[in-house]
Amino acid sequence: MSEPFSFTLLKTDGAARRGEIVTPDGKVQTPAFMPVGTQGSVKGLTPEAVAATGAEIVLGNTYHLMLRPGAERIAALGGLHEFMRWPRPILTDSGGFQVMSLAALRRLEEKGVTFRSHLDGAMVELTPERAVEIQALLGADISMQLDECIGLPATRDEMARAMALSLRWAERSKRAFANRSRDGCALFGIVQGGDDPALRAESARALVDIGFDGYAIGGLAVGEPQAVMLKIVAETAPTLPADRPRYLMGVGTPDDLLQAVARGIDMFDCVMPTRNGRHGTAFTRFGQINLANARHAHDARLLDAESTHPAARGYSRAYLHHLVKANEMLGAVLLSTINLAYYQALMAGMREAIAAGNFADFHAATQAGWERGDLPPL
Amino acid sequence: MSEPFSFTLLKTDGAARRGEIVTPDGKVQTPAFMPVGTQGSVKGLTPEAVAATGAEIVLGNTYHLMLRPGAERIAALGGLHEFMRWPRPILTDSGGFQVMSLAALRRLEEKGVTFRSHLDGAMVELTPERAVEIQALLGADISMQLDECIGLPATRDEMARAMALSLRWAERSKRAFANRSRDGCALFGIVQGGDDPALRAESARALVDIGFDGYAIGGLAVGEPQAVMLKIVAETAPTLPADRPRYLMGVGTPDDLLQAVARGIDMFDCVMPTRNGRHGTAFTRFGQINLANARHAHDARLLDAESTHPAARGYSRAYLHHLVKANEMLGAVLLSTINLAYYQALMAGMREAIAAGNFADFHAATQAGWERGDLPPL
Repeated sequence: MSEPFSFTLLKTDGAARRGEIVTPDGKVQTPAFMPVGTQGSVKGLTPEAVAATGAEIVLGNTYHLMLRPGAERIAALGGLHEFMRWPRPILTDSGGFQVMSLAALRRLEEKGVTFRSHLDGAMVELTPERAVEIQALLGADISMQLDECIGLPATRDEMARAMALSLRWAERSKRAFANRSRDGCALFGIVQGGDDPALRAESARALVDIGFDGYAIGGLAVGEPQAVMLKIVAETAPTLPADRPRYLMGVGTPDDLLQAVARGIDMFDCVMPTRNGRHGTAFTRFGQINLANARHAHDARLLDAESTHPAARGYSRAYLHHLVKANEMLGAVLLSTINLAYYQALMAGMREAIAAGNFADFHAATQAGWERGDLPPL
Repeated sequence: MSEPFSFTLLKTDGAARRGEIVTPDGKVQTPAFMPVGTQGSVKGLTPEAVAATGAEIVLGNTYHLMLRPGAERIAALGGLHEFMRWPRPILTDSGGFQVMSLAALRRLEEKGVTFRSHLDGAMVELTPERAVEIQALLGADISMQLDECIGLPATRDEMARAMALSLRWAERSKRAFANRSRDGCALFGIVQGGDDPALRAESARALVDIGFDGYAIGGLAVGEPQAVMLKIVAETAPTLPADRPRYLMGVGTPDDLLQAVARGIDMFDCVMPTRNGRHGTAFTRFGQINLANARHAHDARLLDAESTHPAARGYSRAYLHHLVKANEMLGAVLLSTINLAYYQALMAGMREAIAAGNFADFHAATQAGWERGDLPPL
């Protein structure tokens, strides 16, 4: 019953693509958004609740899981799917991005990166080979190569150096993956090169020469304006094979998703729906709504009476406001759920529109809804 | 369809009672445990999740809700049932206990208690009449009289003074309730008197003379040993009318519940299942289990494979341990759910046993299970 990884491009509408990914643990309709289950849990939600938002795949963070509870521990417990009771596809990152952003005392060498654990101070080494090994221990359906992701702005030399290192690590990752991975699982390469089009093109070309099951665009959403990100995406996507999925890492807002799909991206992950939900922000077809705002205190109206998810059409704005102001855990749970459901509804809307050949209309109507903004105050 | 409050005693087994409470918002099978929804939310759980644990009634805290979002605000929004989307019975406390334990600068007078809000420093007055009014604004199915609850140990003079004041407030509460309450709702009186049997007897007698829809035993679980609490319960319960429900406020551990039912109590509320759940403790048929303990880190076994609730039989001990150690919100959510479900399963077991006339056997078998303790380590 378990099928090997594959990607089928079902339909295109302009640069936007409607596809299907098959993995050993199930199928994913693309364009797809992957909720982030950093430490083996999409924060506050049971796996059933995550699935009920419409998610077909989640992301697990290698950096967090390797430190606690440990990749070997999770493998001994039957793998990440079994551990977190998520029987559907899982993509794991390589840990590289979070080593750069979270770990102290990191030392970057050709061999890999050594860092001090933020949990217990232990020195830990992460190499391309170990990153592949960890992801195999976790049982990921889709693994990512270790790369070096730098912030923007950066000098061209720095971008070129990190891109070249990431390419050498890509080759080592692919060799390691051939020896380690569960049958039928996939390894994605990651295009780097900062905001320099020539470096991005060079990175993409070299990765395609190595050959991966899918290609990610990394090193974006790291401080640059949206326009810069979209320009890089628009330039990079067409250089990648049409018959492989394209994953824009760590992105983004609903508008980022819409615009990146318009430029040929198939997969996304981002902590924004859960993190902003924990801080009182709802993503809706009316745009972002800050539930902490006093305008909602008396407002008996539902957040979005037409939402596809019961959490968004089940509670008054006044109640959500109260939960946020009172710092009640249920506020974080409900707004995380509402936001993940909105992201999934947005992806479903894009998939339908591409299939029907009216993505441009959907794009315009969705943006118009955000621009109209929230319901007028009572 | 809405029926007025009533209580039917269906069966007794020794002092233990099997009954049914009818309220305008539905029925409650007794003995019953009421999860605490302090600020309009049982912490971390949706109303559907609360109902799925088996709860038929929840408790709302007048003190918290009067301060935020305010009783008049909740009334304008359609009442507490509508606000928190809990369409079943709600009992509200009077606010008195939490004024004593949470508010600063309180001043107790014959008229009532004045205190400084812990939220914004405003001076607030709570009288027996205002407590009844607030609970009517919330739309409680069962309201509680304002009383003065003192800690133990206390001097006899202090216990006698607080008991007498609580009785005068009981009379005022009943008068106010006759003018204010929603049709068919109930008001309970509260027996006080500390650990002094004569004072307790005097309090109970006087309350029965005033006449209430039900009777609570207050002022216990405030620092005294369990044996003292059970002695007061055993002495007080028989002095209360058999045809009215008896509610032991703020109690307690599973063993407290079992032993208090054995002495004729019908209703309970306690924050313990949710609070201890948030701190990593599970209540189970094996007794209390501290999931933070390292013994669980490698343990792939379910917490309780025979639990009535999917949360307790759905995740490994290693995963629950990981969530607790990683301070993941889902750990608090799952353990709160597991604990509430265990409390409800315990109550259901007691109800069945009383109906079948074998409560003593159930009592002994349940305690034996706790005494055997948890599964042996792997």
